[in-house]
Amino acid sequence: MHFDPQSLRYDDKGLIPAIAQDHASGEVLMVAWMNAEAVTRTLETGRVTYWSRSRQAYWVKGKSSGHVQQLVELRLDCDRDCLLLAVEQTGPACHTNRRSCFFTAVRDGNEIEVMAPKG
Amino acid sequence: MHFDPQSLRYDDKGLIPAIAQDHASGEVLMVAWMNAEAVTRTLETGRVTYWSRSRQAYWVKGKSSGHVQQLVELRLDCDRDCLLLAVEQTGPACHTNRRSCFFTAVRDGNEIEVMAPKG
Repeated sequence: MHFDPQSLRYDDKGLIPAIAQDHASGEVLMVAWMNAEAVTRTLETGRVTYWSRSRQAYWVKGKSSGHVQQLVELRLDCDRDCLLLAVEQTGPACHTNRRSCFFTAVRDGNEIEVMAPKG
Repeated sequence: MHFDPQSLRYDDKGLIPAIAQDHASGEVLMVAWMNAEAVTRTLETGRVTYWSRSRQAYWVKGKSSGHVQQLVELRLDCDRDCLLLAVEQTGPACHTNRRSCFFTAVRDGNEIEVMAPKG
C-alpha cells in the first residue's frame, strides 16, 4: 500500500510524535514532533526533519550543530499516531551534548544522571 | 534530587508521552500516555500504568490481557516532557498480538508489515 503522510493521525496542532532510535544499538535518542510536511521531507531527503514547536519552524536535525540524523527506516504504530525512526546519529543527539536526551533516571525516588556530556 | 511527578511538563490535557522499551533487547514496544497520578502509580507498584485517552481511565497494562509491563527503570528527557520506560514485557505489547506496535515500515514509498502476530 502506498504510504501517504496525510493518512497519519495528527493531534489538534497537526503534529505527531517521532522517536529517534539508534539503528545499530537500539538506544532511544530523543523524541520530537513532525507535521505531515516534515514527514514528507524526512522521507524525500533522508535527513530527519522535525517541526520545532518552540520556534514554529522546520528543524533539519543537525543543520546548525552538525549532529545530523540520517534516516535508516521510518515505522508507524498500530494507531498511526506515533512514528519510530531508525537513524544513524552523528555525534550527540541531545542539545546538552549527551548521546541521548534520556539521561535522567528515577531510582529510589531520586533523579540520577546516568549519562555524561561528551568531551 | 527527589523526583516529583508534578515536576514533569505535561501537555494542555495534563498528559506526557511514555515510550515502553524492552529492557533487554532495546526494542521499542509502544507509546502511550500518562498523567501525574499514572506516573506515581507506575513507580509505586512497578506495574506500568497509563492513562487511556479513549476510555478516560487508568490503564494498568495487561490487567485484562495478562500482557503486563513490569517497570525496570523510568527515565525522563532533557525537556522533562517525555518518559522512557525500560520494561519487562510479558507476551505481546500490541493489541494486535504483535510484540511491538511499530510493525509497519515505510519502504520505497509503501507500507510494509515487518512483524507477524504471535501464534
